[in-house]
Amino acid sequence: MFEPNDPRWRERAGEIFSRAPFVRELGIRLVDLGPGWVESELLVEARHMQQDGVVHAGVQATLADHSAGAAAGTLAPAGHATLSVELKIQLLRPALGERLRCRAQVIRPGRTIVATEAWVYAVAAGEEKLVSQLTATMTYAAPKTG
Amino acid sequence: MFEPNDPRWRERAGEIFSRAPFVRELGIRLVDLGPGWVESELLVEARHMQQDGVVHAGVQATLADHSAGAAAGTLAPAGHATLSVELKIQLLRPALGERLRCRAQVIRPGRTIVATEAWVYAVAAGEEKLVSQLTATMTYAAPKTG
Amino acid sequence: MFEPNDPRWRERAGEIFSRAPFVRELGIRLVDLGPGWVESELLVEARHMQQDGVVHAGVQATLADHSAGAAAGTLAPAGHATLSVELKIQLLRPALGERLRCRAQVIRPGRTIVATEAWVYAVAAGEEKLVSQLTATMTYAAPKTG
Amino acid sequence: MFEPNDPRWRERAGEIFSRAPFVRELGIRLVDLGPGWVESELLVEARHMQQDGVVHAGVQATLADHSAGAAAGTLAPAGHATLSVELKIQLLRPALGERLRCRAQVIRPGRTIVATEAWVYAVAAGEEKLVSQLTATMTYAAPKTG
Repeated sequence: MFEPNDPRWRERAGEIFSRAPFVRELGIRLVDLGPGWVESELLVEARHMQQDGVVHAGVQATLADHSAGAAAGTLAPAGHATLSVELKIQLLRPALGERLRCRAQVIRPGRTIVATEAWVYAVAAGEEKLVSQLTATMTYAAPKTG
Repeated sequence: MFEPNDPRWRERAGEIFSRAPFVRELGIRLVDLGPGWVESELLVEARHMQQDGVVHAGVQATLADHSAGAAAGTLAPAGHATLSVELKIQLLRPALGERLRCRAQVIRPGRTIVATEAWVYAVAAGEEKLVSQLTATMTYAAPKTG
Repeated sequence: MFEPNDPRWRERAGEIFSRAPFVRELGIRLVDLGPGWVESELLVEARHMQQDGVVHAGVQATLADHSAGAAAGTLAPAGHATLSVELKIQLLRPALGERLRCRAQVIRPGRTIVATEAWVYAVAAGEEKLVSQLTATMTYAAPKTG
Repeated sequence: MFEPNDPRWRERAGEIFSRAPFVRELGIRLVDLGPGWVESELLVEARHMQQDGVVHAGVQATLADHSAGAAAGTLAPAGHATLSVELKIQLLRPALGERLRCRAQVIRPGRTIVATEAWVYAVAAGEEKLVSQLTATMTYAAPKTG
């Protein structure tokens, strides 16, 4: 449906996950990707929790935002970074489970402004439930010249 | 301006920070609080970064959301937990600095639905800049019986 | 998928459109509905425009918000009104065409808090394009007594 | 605080109100403005209402979004139009009164992306209450060349 602009799009989207310290720190990893979309996941640990034993909204926001940024990143012009302009996330259910899975995709690509969305699912005992939903605006930043 | 509903409001808002594993993990701490507001901070470390050397949007969202939840929590009925319904955060500038400071407050209290807002400032070499701004809807959940 | 709580749900969702002066004023009408969803439309007129000849974001927000409220309204307890708590709308493309069509649905029902979403399409020369996308939080208000 | 980019900024912000058919149709008018901000108002009429006698969320969204766009418009490069990318509005209280007043301002200007916010107040019997609060992302569009 979408056409990448950079022949290295696949490798670069991978780097968005492998080179971001906070994403590595949390344990978020890229599972699959295509032009305009990515899938990612997180194995839930005790340190990811809110005080009530569910995964913290901030973890869900990080997973959804980073995946949405990587989805936009698959369509970025060569050498451009992808930045979040704003994001909204709706917390639909308590996030309980062994694993969070995220699907993120571009809704509307653009030269400088990209609309994206993402869904976060909690997987508990093999059953998957939608726990949060994000919409976010991304932008492409040209490389700084020195 | 606002009246707490629980005589233990101060202690309970403190517990919102001290008992949340993800918030302890990141290093977020409560600095000050009053009825309807809290101030919090985070000493920035390499592990909090996005790939480009700025603090990850997810860290900012966690700081702002958790602080906004605690601001709502200062007005919670006794025994009720505070949950995020939705949040929107606008990333205004690259978050660069040694420290993030957050001010969160209730805009509109309610029996079940509470509107909140929060501002995140990056402190670099003693200078403070607004880097992101959040609005969020919180709700109070009655304790489970059983 | 969803179960209405009020046997008069269909009639009441219709009234959400027929009894709202602003929605009648704009010319928005209900096209179809079911438990948890509605479809609506608007024939575009010159008075709906922004200065640049596209339909004003406020018209799109009204159409999407009102339809999302009616979608939540199909699941409302008897006698309860449906109110918007917050809404976010992303304007994806210039809204050009003879007609706007809206599909709204409940994502997550609840006793007091309901998550909804809606899509607005512009129809021009028989071709339909997604022009905006909304997520909104709704609440049910008990009838006032006294 | 902000520097206009177009010597005709004042006149052009006025045109954002005077030339938009939907804004004229509703009766929204510009009251005051400066670099990075505008104030506007609306005399409430029966046709602006939701079914429950309060001003429709869509009217509030139109007032807040249009004013925020005009606030961004005061800083637009010459010849550029200001477009809404996304907006979020929180409905804090029922909007009851004879008049709505809106204050909108730029939070963070930029060459292509501008963060804005706005507050809507309902004025009833001389008393003013905050009824809704918006944050929105605007963008500047270069004039089309033929």
